[in-house]
Amino acid sequence: MLKGRHLIDPQDFKVEELEEILDLANKIIANPSKYQDLCKGKILATLFYEPSTRTRLSFEAAMLRLGGQVIGFSEPNSSSVSKGESLSDTIQIVSGYSDIIAIRHPKEGSAKEASIASSVPVINAGDGGHQHPTQTLTDLLTIKNLKGKLHGNTIALCGDLKFGRTVHSLIKALSRYENNRFILISPKELKLPDYIKKDVLDKNNIEYIEIESLEEGIKNSDILYMTRIQKERFENQDEYERLKDVYILNEEKMKLAKMDTIVMHPLPRVNEIDVKVDEDNRACYFKQARFGMYVRMALIVKLLGGK
Amino acid sequence: MLKGRHLIDPQDFKVEELEEILDLANKIIANPSKYQDLCKGKILATLFYEPSTRTRLSFEAAMLRLGGQVIGFSEPNSSSVSKGESLSDTIQIVSGYSDIIAIRHPKEGSAKEASIASSVPVINAGDGGHQHPTQTLTDLLTIKNLKGKLHGNTIALCGDLKFGRTVHSLIKALSRYENNRFILISPKELKLPDYIKKDVLDKNNIEYIEIESLEEGIKNSDILYMTRIQKERFENQDEYERLKDVYILNEEKMKLAKMDTIVMHPLPRVNEIDVKVDEDNRACYFKQARFGMYVRMALIVKLLGGK
Amino acid sequence: MLKGRHLIDPQDFKVEELEEILDLANKIIANPSKYQDLCKGKILATLFYEPSTRTRLSFEAAMLRLGGQVIGFSEPNSSSVSKGESLSDTIQIVSGYSDIIAIRHPKEGSAKEASIASSVPVINAGDGGHQHPTQTLTDLLTIKNLKGKLHGNTIALCGDLKFGRTVHSLIKALSRYENNRFILISPKELKLPDYIKKDVLDKNNIEYIEIESLEEGIKNSDILYMTRIQKERFENQDEYERLKDVYILNEEKMKLAKMDTIVMHPLPRVNEIDVKVDEDNRACYFKQARFGMYVRMALIVKLLGGK
Repeated sequence: MLKGRHLIDPQDFKVEELEEILDLANKIIANPSKYQDLCKGKILATLFYEPSTRTRLSFEAAMLRLGGQVIGFSEPNSSSVSKGESLSDTIQIVSGYSDIIAIRHPKEGSAKEASIASSVPVINAGDGGHQHPTQTLTDLLTIKNLKGKLHGNTIALCGDLKFGRTVHSLIKALSRYENNRFILISPKELKLPDYIKKDVLDKNNIEYIEIESLEEGIKNSDILYMTRIQKERFENQDEYERLKDVYILNEEKMKLAKMDTIVMHPLPRVNEIDVKVDEDNRACYFKQARFGMYVRMALIVKLLGGK
Repeated sequence: MLKGRHLIDPQDFKVEELEEILDLANKIIANPSKYQDLCKGKILATLFYEPSTRTRLSFEAAMLRLGGQVIGFSEPNSSSVSKGESLSDTIQIVSGYSDIIAIRHPKEGSAKEASIASSVPVINAGDGGHQHPTQTLTDLLTIKNLKGKLHGNTIALCGDLKFGRTVHSLIKALSRYENNRFILISPKELKLPDYIKKDVLDKNNIEYIEIESLEEGIKNSDILYMTRIQKERFENQDEYERLKDVYILNEEKMKLAKMDTIVMHPLPRVNEIDVKVDEDNRACYFKQARFGMYVRMALIVKLLGGK
Repeated sequence: MLKGRHLIDPQDFKVEELEEILDLANKIIANPSKYQDLCKGKILATLFYEPSTRTRLSFEAAMLRLGGQVIGFSEPNSSSVSKGESLSDTIQIVSGYSDIIAIRHPKEGSAKEASIASSVPVINAGDGGHQHPTQTLTDLLTIKNLKGKLHGNTIALCGDLKFGRTVHSLIKALSRYENNRFILISPKELKLPDYIKKDVLDKNNIEYIEIESLEEGIKNSDILYMTRIQKERFENQDEYERLKDVYILNEEKMKLAKMDTIVMHPLPRVNEIDVKVDEDNRACYFKQARFGMYVRMALIVKLLGGK
């Protein structure tokens, strides 16, 4: 039963509950007009304490396509924060105006804090480097729909595996399904943290390898999940200069991939995927963004008690 | 007849007209779905020349819950102001796009100026330190609903009674009802201005006392209306240091209040009410915020000619 | 057939297609309630990379009055731009969330770039000094409705004819109709560029005169189209001081105009039209702004395939 629940951490929901959401998303995709009045009379509050246009627009489009309405703000300085109001007070007030809240906040733990203060369901739309569970739902729907299954896939994750919250959440989520294998592609400085290897991968007997070469990793993957490598993450700038091009996906490297490999990216992309790759029909990141809207529709429906 | 009228000053409406709005608010609370399409096809423009998230969201939620729609801006720099357009011109244009306008402006008198230029009803959502009539409507609905009546109450007002526009408007509004008594609690530097004592309280033969002690004042009040004391208001900083804790409402002081006293606050609250007081069921400020949404719904309906 | 098309340059549409839009705008004006659910379930994305409140609110009101919904942003810093995402990527994502896009961008050519990336219709809401086609549609609807015809008018254009994109677009648009004549009123430094005289006016055998005096030009015009003269445009500041008052339209100068001349202005107005002229029933710029909303309604309907 998802009605009235919060979504703060992707692990908040059982596998069966995630399936329920993904299934509903696909029903909506198949027949959107059936759902276009489902949330009539309901209001989503989008409280964005840091800007994130894509995520905000995805949530807003989701609610509007369900016949609901939206209130909110997109930047901290237009909020009451500037008058010294606590997050908890703001949430208590806004949950008096709205039926469901999506919150984005630069501070880790703030979505949790908001859920405690709220009288309506709270969705974490990203709290610092911590969690971004609707991105994980988006990734799961994309894999399910484009690879046909969430188990038995070989997922190559490439880029900044140390700080990338998207990658951490996806590994945790996919470790709950059988027979997934990971190819972890990153420079030494940005390897997946030990606690994830130990507490998630080893604990669940998940097979994985760590390599440095994207060209090597791309060959055997069913899914190639690209992320950005930020200059600021390197202590040694020479190392950054040496490596930056290695982790750029281009047409040349795509030749090494299987015919049915899918390329994903949480977006925004800067230059880590050459725009020429966009033409390749294995490039699925824009489809992925669209799946994000549908999975948010399904999530909103479920938390509001719809079917 | 409220159709087509403006609300600039809370005194713009007769007592019977206020009652009409409060009554409608309560009908909406009792049966919200009956009103959810009432403003279909109508547009509210929220023109916020200074940010005020709570007020803006309250107005927007109000209109959306009536089936209407919202356009607007939440900050001056995203407005045409930066191109040197006069307020009057902006209003003339926007009243061509919308059916009703809520304006917030840092300059006193600007809501009045807007109402003169507008071809649709204008609601003052706060103009400088001047007026904020929908806060007053909110306060009246809260008192009416939680104390059962708008007359015959003892209202303790605590904090900055000199500059607080909310307090001034509430005193004026409640002075129109019979047998209300005021306990004015403030430091000497922030006492209620003489012109309000003379022109409002004395003129209407309203009983009041002025004291410095919150502990003293809390005992006999039916309603305790807290406001913030801002450091900047004190000429003498030692005086501020001496007084600041005296005007913080906490669990200890709540023990002195009657069992049916209600605590109100216009919000945002900074530290003038300890968060532990929130648990006390006499703490009504979050309910008050929610009443604010309903009273704005009623106001919009009335000004647009609905019933 | 306008369904699925983009509107980047006013010349993108044939004269008959423009007529189709103007006719629909008038049908909407005559019977707005007939159209109030036409775009139910559709979403307009307003992507404003530079603020322009009037234009944005006009688009948003247009879509909402058709029963559609709106997502978007009103300033660049609240967009993903700050994360280095390309315009093309943003558009590809947003066209996955929405059914039609209105884009405002400071860089010339960016609306065209957006239309190439988009899977849904794109409307140029202004790209730099380049084009602003919905202003031109607004102007055409205003002239058609208030003068009864788009041909055979004498149009006096006054102010900055060198840099004013509104003026350039209007000249191009009206040159497609028969027997229009232009009176070009400007200081020498801000005369209409030669390429427009040659490629548009001469090529189409359009009669025109160039003069410096507003008083002279106003006499014989059917339409007086005022624009602002900006100080920054003058190399010689003495020249600016000498001329600035000459190009201010006031009651005195209005006495020289015919009884049925209409005064137009794209707005915002700063001081180039004295506010006292607003009372004159020949002053039509606020009506013009309202026509802008209706013509945008018609445009949205047409591009989405409605009738």
